[in-house]
Amino acid sequence: MRILATVADAQRMFEKEREAGRRIGFVPTMGYLHEGHASLVRRARADNDIVGVSIFVNPLQFGANEDLSAYPRDLDRDLDICEREGADVVFAPGTEEMYGTDTGVRVSAGPMATKLCGRTRPEHFDGVVTVVAKLFNIAGACRMYFGQKDAQQLVVIRNLARALNFPVEVVGCPIVRESDGLAMSSRNVYLNDDQRRSALVLKRSLDAAAVAVAEGESDGRRIAEMMAAQISCEPLARLDYAACVDPETLDDLERLDVPALCAVAAWFGSARLIDNMTVTPARGIDRRDD
Amino acid sequence: MRILATVADAQRMFEKEREAGRRIGFVPTMGYLHEGHASLVRRARADNDIVGVSIFVNPLQFGANEDLSAYPRDLDRDLDICEREGADVVFAPGTEEMYGTDTGVRVSAGPMATKLCGRTRPEHFDGVVTVVAKLFNIAGACRMYFGQKDAQQLVVIRNLARALNFPVEVVGCPIVRESDGLAMSSRNVYLNDDQRRSALVLKRSLDAAAVAVAEGESDGRRIAEMMAAQISCEPLARLDYAACVDPETLDDLERLDVPALCAVAAWFGSARLIDNMTVTPARGIDRRDD
Repeated sequence: MRILATVADAQRMFEKEREAGRRIGFVPTMGYLHEGHASLVRRARADNDIVGVSIFVNPLQFGANEDLSAYPRDLDRDLDICEREGADVVFAPGTEEMYGTDTGVRVSAGPMATKLCGRTRPEHFDGVVTVVAKLFNIAGACRMYFGQKDAQQLVVIRNLARALNFPVEVVGCPIVRESDGLAMSSRNVYLNDDQRRSALVLKRSLDAAAVAVAEGESDGRRIAEMMAAQISCEPLARLDYAACVDPETLDDLERLDVPALCAVAAWFGSARLIDNMTVTPARGIDRRDD
Repeated sequence: MRILATVADAQRMFEKEREAGRRIGFVPTMGYLHEGHASLVRRARADNDIVGVSIFVNPLQFGANEDLSAYPRDLDRDLDICEREGADVVFAPGTEEMYGTDTGVRVSAGPMATKLCGRTRPEHFDGVVTVVAKLFNIAGACRMYFGQKDAQQLVVIRNLARALNFPVEVVGCPIVRESDGLAMSSRNVYLNDDQRRSALVLKRSLDAAAVAVAEGESDGRRIAEMMAAQISCEPLARLDYAACVDPETLDDLERLDVPALCAVAAWFGSARLIDNMTVTPARGIDRRDD
């Protein structure tokens, strides 16, 4: 497994592999890898000839009061995981290498970035699409793998690729959970034992929404309110949002007659965690109200 | 010569040529081609195996009160010129094809875009870099040719490529002028005879600046003021700006000890014209003032 620290080396290497006719799979990460990342690398390994993983904590996607300096890092462990999962190359640049010649060029994710997580993290998705645009250009034509756990990020990145015509196939992969249901996240390390138990309310609220929808509930606002109430009842949780939205536009859904994205976010101590689930309305929706 | 109207066709065609080991040269234009554009196509022809030209009047780079609807168009004549100059492919998409799936994703050119022309055209360069980012992705790894006439645009696009790591070599080409010195521009067609004669003041002001600098003038503000005064004295000219700036940062230069970019802009009737010249200080600059 090769470890590259410069944009020029990475770009040249992927270009050379592509010229040799090999298909590239790429997994962008901020490091501190867990089983969720590992599943992306395995999927990239299964689908492609060459697998690249980037490890870069992107300062642009952290707000002024967020956890950039505290964000967990463990490069040696990350490299072991990449090697174990069969990555061919790890691109691990420093901040200077990525933004040293920064003249303020930015990509803006558009109105989609102001919804859901964007309400409390107003600059977050512009930071994400700026670094992802760079990674698209560094990896070149490829398949790029992202976790469904960051559902809004996945939508925003699909839009980025489509809107600016990047020759990249964006692949979303299922959420990986701990055995008790907590969605895996590098930020789970911030939780103490009590917060860790409380955080299970996120998945419980989504499960409850799925059950309600399966049983015929089709009012999006009622589903969102139900999830919000459940999270708010959990003593150590501080609700950010609970929403039931169109999976492509992220607009609030009033009536569920297509699959909907239920998405929740809450703080547990200093850790802001998110989770989501796609729920499908029951076949025989009661339409007498229409 | 092939004419393509869809992004997918163009992207596939360039990709195939690149896979066959051929080098791509690409000339982005807004059509209504003149000898300046023709010189870019010839340069691309000389440097590369495959030459593409795009013809697309980009609505994003026009302000609300600008000349989008009046902008001159003549596709048949443009195609003749492309064919004559040896282009292999013309990419001429409609607005729907370029922006039909637009979800508001934009590229922002950063602070550089607020200087010079950016003062009167605040959204212009963001519109330029957004469409150029798309064209970078459609053409793929290539050399892309831009005229030095739009000096700020060239700087902004070089920054775009560098900041976001596009695998594109941005090539700047010399200004092409009419025999009397007027810089060629699709907008010259707006001028009546009197305005056409008046517009020569732009080049005259730049020539005067170059002479002054060659004779030892090294005060950037004095040079800018001299050009501004000369343009303002021309009855049919309405000055936008006259500036003497660092060619890379576009910051005003107080003291010329390196080559400087002299840039001017003025309206003649409804036509806003620009021109520029790189001036090099005399070798033996008088430094007694220092």
